[in-house]
Amino acid sequence: MKVFIVHAHPERKSLNGALTDIAVDTLTGAGHEVRVSDLYAMRWKSTIDADDFGPAASTPLDATLDSGRAFETGTLTDDIRAEQDKLRWADTVILQFPLWWYTMPAILKGWVDRVFTYGFGYGVGEHNETRYGDRFGEGALQGKRAMLSLTVGGPESHYSDRGINGPIDDLLYPIQHGILYHPGMQVLPPFVLYGAGRISAETFTTATDLWKECLLDLPHTDPIPYRTQNGGDYEIPAARLRPGLEAPGRTGFGLHIHA
Amino acid sequence: MKVFIVHAHPERKSLNGALTDIAVDTLTGAGHEVRVSDLYAMRWKSTIDADDFGPAASTPLDATLDSGRAFETGTLTDDIRAEQDKLRWADTVILQFPLWWYTMPAILKGWVDRVFTYGFGYGVGEHNETRYGDRFGEGALQGKRAMLSLTVGGPESHYSDRGINGPIDDLLYPIQHGILYHPGMQVLPPFVLYGAGRISAETFTTATDLWKECLLDLPHTDPIPYRTQNGGDYEIPAARLRPGLEAPGRTGFGLHIHA
Repeated sequence: MKVFIVHAHPERKSLNGALTDIAVDTLTGAGHEVRVSDLYAMRWKSTIDADDFGPAASTPLDATLDSGRAFETGTLTDDIRAEQDKLRWADTVILQFPLWWYTMPAILKGWVDRVFTYGFGYGVGEHNETRYGDRFGEGALQGKRAMLSLTVGGPESHYSDRGINGPIDDLLYPIQHGILYHPGMQVLPPFVLYGAGRISAETFTTATDLWKECLLDLPHTDPIPYRTQNGGDYEIPAARLRPGLEAPGRTGFGLHIHA
Repeated sequence: MKVFIVHAHPERKSLNGALTDIAVDTLTGAGHEVRVSDLYAMRWKSTIDADDFGPAASTPLDATLDSGRAFETGTLTDDIRAEQDKLRWADTVILQFPLWWYTMPAILKGWVDRVFTYGFGYGVGEHNETRYGDRFGEGALQGKRAMLSLTVGGPESHYSDRGINGPIDDLLYPIQHGILYHPGMQVLPPFVLYGAGRISAETFTTATDLWKECLLDLPHTDPIPYRTQNGGDYEIPAARLRPGLEAPGRTGFGLHIHA
């Protein structure tokens, strides 16, 4: 595999740092190629602004059209083009981050906001009354696989089916389906390490053993069976799931996974 | 009211800019006080790092403990303390932003990550086997009200009950429940403007009329009836909803709203 790890934690000597180090060692040890973007070490710029689009920036700024024009003309900034090239190179993408406020840290969101430009992350394919783009299973990153690896401060019960924070699968849906599957990547089940705030040495060893196993299994792991937008399950252009396709009792985000 | 608007868009001459301008004019015109944090204009720093905690920063960095210590000792940076002061001053908080990748832009997530420190946004109250903090209905911002106002590029059907992106209420749950209700604010129903990419003059007028009405109604709007963590509905410390409390068919995030 060619694995691209996007690492988003302010302290390299952290649990997240350890998980990324283990991933690099385990994967290279098994003969895979690995590249890492350590966003904090790179001092990654988190905010979209006119500087991203150079001569393609319009006045007033239109982040969608301007990013698309800069993408088409090859005038995006070097930092954005480098990340897009890493995504093109990879066949497997891992996002490693702590869950902060039930989603990714700002620096990682800023990586998505800036790198997933119009024409690359979205706005791919025809958009008309009978087709609403190549997305959700199709797109510029089609054929690649992606996985989240995250640490969570609270205990697992808070993220269970009846947990107050909501089920972890639902919290991750906007990232897994909305960001990774949207431009065409298949999404593997996430690796989630709970209770990360006060982890014992024993728990750490158990967790890292599981992590190594998960990494070595990657080539054979089945993705989450999300429905493709353009495979007939959805009314187009409304992008509503056709009636009666879901398993009994499935609602909300769960509708978009094959029964 | 004392209304604090946090505005997150890179272009002031945008739909988001117009909605914030209308909010300021409408609310001040009705005799309310308004303060605005225009995050792009302030060049808001999005990323948590050791610089946020000054002498309270430990090696290796621990963002939770360090932010708590800096909060307690009044040594957070000026920019963070100013935002916390605005939150203390306000009785009503509005977050105005475009929905990017199914959640807030990085700069606004960075405002949450940095301003909602331990001891202020979370980690308030006792944490032991019979109590898991003052949160979800209680906390440092208890008694205040908050609302999201957002623009969405896609059409409403994509965010409907069977829409491919998932229902908008579920997409916003991690923000409304996880960020706003968590430190104690009551959350008002969101103002959502769909199809923001190509809005006609007529739609704009209709939308801004609705927005003005929504703003003037604010003092009388009922909040979303989320369950309080410490009101008896949850097993503690597991924070799982006790069996049988929900309306028939409610699952996932919907469990945490009173039947």
